[in-house]
Amino acid sequence: MQSIDLNSDLGESFGRYSLGNDDQIIKLVSSVNVACGFHAGDPDVMAQTVAKAQVSGTAIGAHPSYPDRQGFGRRFMAMTPDEVKHLVIYQIGALKAFTKNGCLHHVKPHGALYNRAAKDHELALAICQGIQSVDPRLPIYGLAGSQLIKAAQEIGLPYAQEAFADRNYEADGSLVARSHENAVITDPDLIAKRVLKLIQTESLQTIDGSILNLKADSICVHGDNKAALEIVEKIRSVLSEANIQIKSF
Amino acid sequence: MQSIDLNSDLGESFGRYSLGNDDQIIKLVSSVNVACGFHAGDPDVMAQTVAKAQVSGTAIGAHPSYPDRQGFGRRFMAMTPDEVKHLVIYQIGALKAFTKNGCLHHVKPHGALYNRAAKDHELALAICQGIQSVDPRLPIYGLAGSQLIKAAQEIGLPYAQEAFADRNYEADGSLVARSHENAVITDPDLIAKRVLKLIQTESLQTIDGSILNLKADSICVHGDNKAALEIVEKIRSVLSEANIQIKSF
Amino acid sequence: MQSIDLNSDLGESFGRYSLGNDDQIIKLVSSVNVACGFHAGDPDVMAQTVAKAQVSGTAIGAHPSYPDRQGFGRRFMAMTPDEVKHLVIYQIGALKAFTKNGCLHHVKPHGALYNRAAKDHELALAICQGIQSVDPRLPIYGLAGSQLIKAAQEIGLPYAQEAFADRNYEADGSLVARSHENAVITDPDLIAKRVLKLIQTESLQTIDGSILNLKADSICVHGDNKAALEIVEKIRSVLSEANIQIKSF
Amino acid sequence: MQSIDLNSDLGESFGRYSLGNDDQIIKLVSSVNVACGFHAGDPDVMAQTVAKAQVSGTAIGAHPSYPDRQGFGRRFMAMTPDEVKHLVIYQIGALKAFTKNGCLHHVKPHGALYNRAAKDHELALAICQGIQSVDPRLPIYGLAGSQLIKAAQEIGLPYAQEAFADRNYEADGSLVARSHENAVITDPDLIAKRVLKLIQTESLQTIDGSILNLKADSICVHGDNKAALEIVEKIRSVLSEANIQIKSF
Repeated sequence: MQSIDLNSDLGESFGRYSLGNDDQIIKLVSSVNVACGFHAGDPDVMAQTVAKAQVSGTAIGAHPSYPDRQGFGRRFMAMTPDEVKHLVIYQIGALKAFTKNGCLHHVKPHGALYNRAAKDHELALAICQGIQSVDPRLPIYGLAGSQLIKAAQEIGLPYAQEAFADRNYEADGSLVARSHENAVITDPDLIAKRVLKLIQTESLQTIDGSILNLKADSICVHGDNKAALEIVEKIRSVLSEANIQIKSF
Repeated sequence: MQSIDLNSDLGESFGRYSLGNDDQIIKLVSSVNVACGFHAGDPDVMAQTVAKAQVSGTAIGAHPSYPDRQGFGRRFMAMTPDEVKHLVIYQIGALKAFTKNGCLHHVKPHGALYNRAAKDHELALAICQGIQSVDPRLPIYGLAGSQLIKAAQEIGLPYAQEAFADRNYEADGSLVARSHENAVITDPDLIAKRVLKLIQTESLQTIDGSILNLKADSICVHGDNKAALEIVEKIRSVLSEANIQIKSF
Repeated sequence: MQSIDLNSDLGESFGRYSLGNDDQIIKLVSSVNVACGFHAGDPDVMAQTVAKAQVSGTAIGAHPSYPDRQGFGRRFMAMTPDEVKHLVIYQIGALKAFTKNGCLHHVKPHGALYNRAAKDHELALAICQGIQSVDPRLPIYGLAGSQLIKAAQEIGLPYAQEAFADRNYEADGSLVARSHENAVITDPDLIAKRVLKLIQTESLQTIDGSILNLKADSICVHGDNKAALEIVEKIRSVLSEANIQIKSF
Repeated sequence: MQSIDLNSDLGESFGRYSLGNDDQIIKLVSSVNVACGFHAGDPDVMAQTVAKAQVSGTAIGAHPSYPDRQGFGRRFMAMTPDEVKHLVIYQIGALKAFTKNGCLHHVKPHGALYNRAAKDHELALAICQGIQSVDPRLPIYGLAGSQLIKAAQEIGLPYAQEAFADRNYEADGSLVARSHENAVITDPDLIAKRVLKLIQTESLQTIDGSILNLKADSICVHGDNKAALEIVEKIRSVLSEANIQIKSF
C-alpha cells in the first residue's frame, strides 16, 4: 500500500501566549515540527508538545530557527555558517532531551532559515552539518529539489523531499513568492486533488502551466486555523479513497 | 591511590563578551561546568568550550541556570517546579548535543538555582527529576549534605557531594553568606591546606570552631582571575605531594 | 459631578502573538496601562497601542515589569533597588517616546513587581524613585493603602489609590490571595454594586465581614475576555445611573 | 576658533560583562554614543554611563541597534521600515529617560543598522523618521554623503556628517570593506595627520589616490583598547597644535 507523510508545525505557543490548534492537528498528521524556543515555544511548551505527540504516536521533529521571537523566525539574519551550525545543534539537542530515549524523527528548519537555505548552498550545508554532528541518521526535511536537499546529498545526510499542499510552484521548483497574488491556493478540493495527483504522478503543474517532476516524501500542511484544518481533513479523505496511507517513513 | 575531582565553571563568555581564563583553568581541573546559554554562553561558545574540554580530556558537565543573562543567573526567580524541571532538561539537552556521542559527565546547577535548591527541597527535587528524565545515570553536583543531595538520594539519581575550596562553612554545613566578612578565604596556602585536610580527614573546621563531617567527592575552584589560578596551582601542588590524584570519578 | 477613573492593562500582544481585546476595552475605560516590552508588548505593539489610545482620548500610562516574557512578569525576581529603579526608568522612557509630545498620564507597575512592592517598602521606594527621576509630576497607580502609596507619599510623588473591581479584600486592605477560593468575584451585578458602594461610601466589606475604609482614585478592570468586557459594561451602566462620570483625573 | 566634534561608542558593558575603557575615553571626546540595551548595555549600565557623561560634560547620544546581543548588532536583520522606526523610537526613549531633563544631543545608529542604512534609502528614511517622531530637533550622525544624510535632508532632520579617523575610503565616499587588507589604518601619526588635513581641506585622499570632498562635522574614534586610546591622544595633540578645538556642536 502506497503511503505519504503529512507534516505540520507545532508547539508554537509561548508563555501566556497560545497559538495553533495543536490538539486537533496532531491527530491528523503523521509527523510534527516542534518549535525549539528560538522563534516560538519554551521549555514548558516543548515538554507538553512532545508528550502529546508521544501519546498520539506522531513522529517528532525539531524545528530550529533564527533567534528571533519578535519576528517569529521569519526575518533573515546575516549569520556565519558556524553560527548557524551551532544554533541548529543547540536547538535539536534541547528538543531531543524532552523525548523518550532521546529519539527524534527528523529536523526541519523554520521560516527564514528554511527559505534562505533553499537557495543558499553554504547556509544549507551549515544546517545539514549541524544535524549530522548531532546524529548522522537524522533526516532533514527540505523543499524538494532545493539546496537543502543538495547539501544533504553532498554530505550523506538522510533527507525527505517536501512539497507544500497549498502553494503554487514556479517552473524551477521554487514556491511562488507570497507577494504574488496566486501564491497560496485556498480551495480545499483543489488542494486535495493536487496532493493526490502529486503522489500518483510524481509531478505537478506549475503556475506557468508546465509540468514539474517532483517526488515528494512529505507534504506540509497548516493547521493553525479552522480553514486549514478543513483542508487537512479533505486531503486525508481524498488520500483514503485512493488507498494512500498517511504515515511517517 | 586516593583521588579527588576538581571542578570549575567554564564557557561563560557570550557573543563579543569574553569572560574567564578557560584555556588555562581547563588544564588544571578534572571536570568543568559549562554554561548553557541561559546565564552565560551561547551556541558558539558552547561548541568551542566542549571542543577544548574534549582536547584536554576534562570531564564535561552542564551548568543550567535561571533564564537571566543580565543577572548572570545570580538572582532568584520564583518558578514552579515544572518550569524548573523543563529548563533543566532544555539546557542539558542543548549542551549534550555539542558533545561527542552525546556524553555528559554531570550536571551542576548554577548560581541562584544552586544556592536556593541547597535549602529548598521542592526545587532540588525538580532539578533532580529534570536530570533524571534526560539520563538516569547522569550525576548531579550539589553542596555536600544539602537538599540537592537529599533529593538525589530520594529518587535514586547519582550525585557528587561538593565542597568549596575558598569558602568558610557554618556549623550546619551551609556556606557562610557572602555578606559576612569571613565568607571567602583568600590565602592560597590556607586554602590548599584546608582542601588537603578535608580529603584526608573527611571533615573541616567551621567558622565557629566546631568540626563538620564532610566527605567531598568534588572540590569547586574558581579560575576567573590571576589570584584564583594561583590558588588552583597551590591546591594541585599540595595534593600532588600528598599523593592524591586529581581526576573525575 | 462625581467621577472615577477606570483603568485596564493593554498592549500585551507580542510579535505574532495576539492577546486581549484592546480595540473594545480602550473605549470603555478612562486610562490604560501599556506594556513596555519587558513582560509583553514590543516596539510595534507599543506604537499601535499608543496610537489607538490617542485616537480614543484614553489616558496613557506605562506598565513596567520585571524582565520576564516567558513568565509574563508574574514571577518575582530578586533584584536590587537600583536594578529596579533603572528598569522602571528604561521602560517609562521607551513608552513615553511613542506618545505625542512625550506625555504620559501615569505609571502602574505590572504583575509580580506590583504585588511585591505593595508589601515591600524598599522595592516600592525604588519604583517611585525611578518614576520621579523621569518626571516628578508623573503619578503612580498603587494598591490603596499599600507600600507603593506610602513610598510615593514619602518622596512627594503624586499617586492614585487603586482598587480592584473583581477581587475580595482582607481586613488589612490586601487582596485575598488567588489561591483562596473566594479571591475573585465573577458576578457582574455584584461587582458593579461593590464598585458603586466603594465610590459612594469610600469603604468596602472585606472577606471577614468587616468594613475597610478605602478611598479609591482608580478602579482596575480586566477586558481580556468576553466575561470581563461584560463586567466593564455593567460597571459603566451602574455608574452612569448614579451620575458618576468615568474619567481620568 | 575652528572646532570639530570627536565621538566614540560607549556604555557597551552588559550585566557581569565589562567592555571598553569608558572612564578614559569619555574625557578625550566631545560626544558619546550610548548603547541602549539592544546590542549592548542594560538599564544599569545606561544609568552609570549617562551619569559619567554628565559629570565630564560630554554630549550624550543614543546608539540604537538591531535587537541582537549575541551578534553585538553587527548582523543585518531583514526588518520592515516600520519595525526599524519603532525600535529606534523605543531605544531613544529608553536612553533619554536616564538623562537630566530628558536632553539628548544626537542619535547614531549602531553597527549593521548604520552600515546598511548608509546604502539603503528606505532603511535610512525609517531611522530618520523614528528620530524625528521623538524630537524633530535631534540630529542624526551618519556617514558623510551617505543615504542617512540624504534621508535626513529629505525630511528636514538635523544631521552631522561623520568621518572615520582610522578607515580608508573608496572613491565614492564609502568605507573600504573590512575584508580588504587596507581597510583600517593603524599608525597613530598617519591617522592624526589625515584628521587634521580632513578638517583643514574638507577633503581626503581615497584608496585609489583620488581626492574626495568631505566636510565632516564629527570624527568617530575608538577607545576600546590601549592602541585606540593612543590614537585619540595623538589626534587631540595634533588638533591642539593646529588651534582646532574639540567640542560638540
